Amino acid sequence: MADNPKQRHRGAHVDAETVFSNYQAITSKTFLVSLMVEFIGTMMFTFLGSTVTDKVFGPWVNGLALAVWVYSAANISGGHLNPAVTFSTLICGFYPVLHSVLYVILQFCGAIMGALLVAGLVPGVSVGMGDGAPGCFDSTIIGKGLSHSQLFGWEVGMTFTLLSVVYACGVAKPGHGSFTPLAVGLSLVACAGTGGQWTGAALNPARVVGPLAVFKCGTDVAYIYILAHLLAAVLACSIFAFVSGWGPLSPFQSM
Amino acid sequence: MADNPKQRHRGAHVDAETVFSNYQAITSKTFLVSLMVEFIGTMMFTFLGSTVTDKVFGPWVNGLALAVWVYSAANISGGHLNPAVTFSTLICGFYPVLHSVLYVILQFCGAIMGALLVAGLVPGVSVGMGDGAPGCFDSTIIGKGLSHSQLFGWEVGMTFTLLSVVYACGVAKPGHGSFTPLAVGLSLVACAGTGGQWTGAALNPARVVGPLAVFKCGTDVAYIYILAHLLAAVLACSIFAFVSGWGPLSPFQSM
Amino acid sequence: MADNPKQRHRGAHVDAETVFSNYQAITSKTFLVSLMVEFIGTMMFTFLGSTVTDKVFGPWVNGLALAVWVYSAANISGGHLNPAVTFSTLICGFYPVLHSVLYVILQFCGAIMGALLVAGLVPGVSVGMGDGAPGCFDSTIIGKGLSHSQLFGWEVGMTFTLLSVVYACGVAKPGHGSFTPLAVGLSLVACAGTGGQWTGAALNPARVVGPLAVFKCGTDVAYIYILAHLLAAVLACSIFAFVSGWGPLSPFQSM
Amino acid sequence: MADNPKQRHRGAHVDAETVFSNYQAITSKTFLVSLMVEFIGTMMFTFLGSTVTDKVFGPWVNGLALAVWVYSAANISGGHLNPAVTFSTLICGFYPVLHSVLYVILQFCGAIMGALLVAGLVPGVSVGMGDGAPGCFDSTIIGKGLSHSQLFGWEVGMTFTLLSVVYACGVAKPGHGSFTPLAVGLSLVACAGTGGQWTGAALNPARVVGPLAVFKCGTDVAYIYILAHLLAAVLACSIFAFVSGWGPLSPFQSM
Repeated sequence: MADNPKQRHRGAHVDAETVFSNYQAITSKTFLVSLMVEFIGTMMFTFLGSTVTDKVFGPWVNGLALAVWVYSAANISGGHLNPAVTFSTLICGFYPVLHSVLYVILQFCGAIMGALLVAGLVPGVSVGMGDGAPGCFDSTIIGKGLSHSQLFGWEVGMTFTLLSVVYACGVAKPGHGSFTPLAVGLSLVACAGTGGQWTGAALNPARVVGPLAVFKCGTDVAYIYILAHLLAAVLACSIFAFVSGWGPLSPFQSM
Repeated sequence: MADNPKQRHRGAHVDAETVFSNYQAITSKTFLVSLMVEFIGTMMFTFLGSTVTDKVFGPWVNGLALAVWVYSAANISGGHLNPAVTFSTLICGFYPVLHSVLYVILQFCGAIMGALLVAGLVPGVSVGMGDGAPGCFDSTIIGKGLSHSQLFGWEVGMTFTLLSVVYACGVAKPGHGSFTPLAVGLSLVACAGTGGQWTGAALNPARVVGPLAVFKCGTDVAYIYILAHLLAAVLACSIFAFVSGWGPLSPFQSM
Repeated sequence: MADNPKQRHRGAHVDAETVFSNYQAITSKTFLVSLMVEFIGTMMFTFLGSTVTDKVFGPWVNGLALAVWVYSAANISGGHLNPAVTFSTLICGFYPVLHSVLYVILQFCGAIMGALLVAGLVPGVSVGMGDGAPGCFDSTIIGKGLSHSQLFGWEVGMTFTLLSVVYACGVAKPGHGSFTPLAVGLSLVACAGTGGQWTGAALNPARVVGPLAVFKCGTDVAYIYILAHLLAAVLACSIFAFVSGWGPLSPFQSM
Repeated sequence: MADNPKQRHRGAHVDAETVFSNYQAITSKTFLVSLMVEFIGTMMFTFLGSTVTDKVFGPWVNGLALAVWVYSAANISGGHLNPAVTFSTLICGFYPVLHSVLYVILQFCGAIMGALLVAGLVPGVSVGMGDGAPGCFDSTIIGKGLSHSQLFGWEVGMTFTLLSVVYACGVAKPGHGSFTPLAVGLSLVACAGTGGQWTGAALNPARVVGPLAVFKCGTDVAYIYILAHLLAAVLACSIFAFVSGWGPLSPFQSM
């Protein structure tokens, strides 16, 4: 489907100039604005996604809130809103180290602020309330009988799905333009609609760390989630590099 | 995601000529038609959104009805259908004062007519029936234990989400073109899917005032909703102005 | 939202040449193919939309099946799939009389064939089984306490919503291009999500007539539905003509 | 709707050069990459679609997972992910025989690997567990009272719907560009939302064969599903060829 051979061939390599002009000096206002947008977007995505309690709307609110905030952020910061996205594009050579570190810090700060919003705006919720707080990924939401390695496998598979969409739609040229935020959001809906019953469907280290920091929940399993997200980031980057080549910042780029 | 550096840089400033040609003299047929479209769109959005009773379809009908009527209105009136959108674009310098006032008046009239349609077409509903009438934002739909300041906070956060999408997709150049109505509608689905359980998810002063005027409901809390929408309008405008600059009608524009 | 002043001004008038080249001689293969596509599309839309029994999926299956078959038909026949669409574009001067008559006949034939598919593929359903057969609009699905004039009003309002999207997205130039089938389908989801509880949400004379002809159901109320669809067709055309001008085939066109 | 006469006329014939440049030598890295992408996409689509247990999310997870993986694969392999798509484009002259055979093999391998992922990641599921395993199309999911010929009819009708969208949006020029993956996914949502209650809504031989091979389920009915998919492939190709002409590889092409 969507067979366009010219697109496909141009898609085989990434245009270095396009990528290099993709970020600004860390001291520029443009980059400061990008950091602010990553902070606000991750905060609001965490807030909306954490507070949904209706079972039917859980995947939808999470996926659509992600889509909507990526739409808001896309033309400014690129709309990562997820350390796994930033880490994957970093190791693939599409984003510089220091920029990536600052993005991830602001994403974590945004998720923490989002969890604080949850604590402030939802009756009966308080800081430090432990497992079971809204938005937490802890033993209370892990499906019955799921082993730690199965938890790991689910999160790898789901995060890999989300990152594959990010690469194919948003990093590859040609991708799918303004379809990217929608497709990324729908990938979260699809994953949360099935894997949500087993892992809660985090797919994003910030979504794990924000509530953990505020509510002290899920401290025993957080590392499983985050390691899974990092492995998925490596996997998605490896496949993209094999298919379409490394990014211009990669040491392997001349290969 | 959706990384396009050229878009991003061009997006950093708003093209004054584009914005100035964006409206016509108040006495022109074009502006009269725009007023009519704002009236019809807000009426139908209020009517459809107010009459849904199924819990699962509440957020969907509201979000999709908004998307659909913004599609119908977008190329004619800009598809505001919400005084918070008009107010925010006014204070940010994208829309002139008198035009904005007339838009808001017609939006309120449309919402009132929409509530009258509800009264006429839904069995058992009558004008002046008080709290609990369809489409009302009153104490019967506010979540248990929610304080007035929490109600205020939820409506600010949700309206800010909707307005951020409006700015990023519909006001910024480049935005996301014909994705705008869909993204705006989906932002309402996401917000109503979670905050709906706490506030009913108004996000729009006309949606509050229309049923209030027809059914005499929610008179004690309406000001909280509307102040929240106005604060969100100021917030969203402030951030947009910081990121992309003031509109051409703003006194701060030369800054 | 989606403010593009150039679009808006170009949208104020319809390009006569574009419209005139929009159809072919009735004896041409192109028109024969269009008739076939209208038949198949209306058949499959009726079949899928009639067989859904799950309450949650009713509006979605109907709206998405419509979107999907309009995508399939759009570039060939224009994807009307609804006599109300054909009738409205006819009276507005966008489609010639004889072509319209043949479209409507094929749409009715398609809906009848779709209802026959229902009879053949759903266990327990048989031709002539009367009220309550799948896809019927009869007294068994009309909401409790709804008067005939309220039924009429609901169908006018919902069909007017659908037709407004058709005009704004698919007839107006510029419309919203390939968003049109999606927006039209989502308008049906939104309407069926609320009005479905009262009228079943037909919005299309063929959807009424197909099951009626096959199952002999709803014979006492069918005229209310169809008259409502025709009035909505007149309303939507009138507003579009006021906003953007008559079509090139209209006797009023030179006004 | 979406009336664009220029599109329509250009759509009447398929551009041979475009199609011929659409694939690469079987020994090329480009084709190897396409095979890998078909494998991964079908694997992940099968895995996500098979594990959903919530009745409300069944059609959504399947349709959105398909949409999302077609987005990921579209610009590389064309995003078939379904032997019925490959077979139909083969017999219509849009894809060469050997390429098609390899695609189908990799799709079946991907679906088998997807079913193995299900066995590994879902507690209580084991290889060879027989009918009722996740993702199986067997007697436990076939609707009560449905005859084998009705089962066959439903799968033909639903697969024909999906393939019509593939042809109209993804093969025809002009199609609907980056709307194709979304429209294809939504066609699966619509079909699964109604026919799912009767057949489980396979629409894809790989989705039948993958779980069958891993869980030994549905061995008595699998041939009905697959024959239905093949007949739908022939039907959709026939109609497309009648409407828009054969593909450049068809022996009938000069007709």
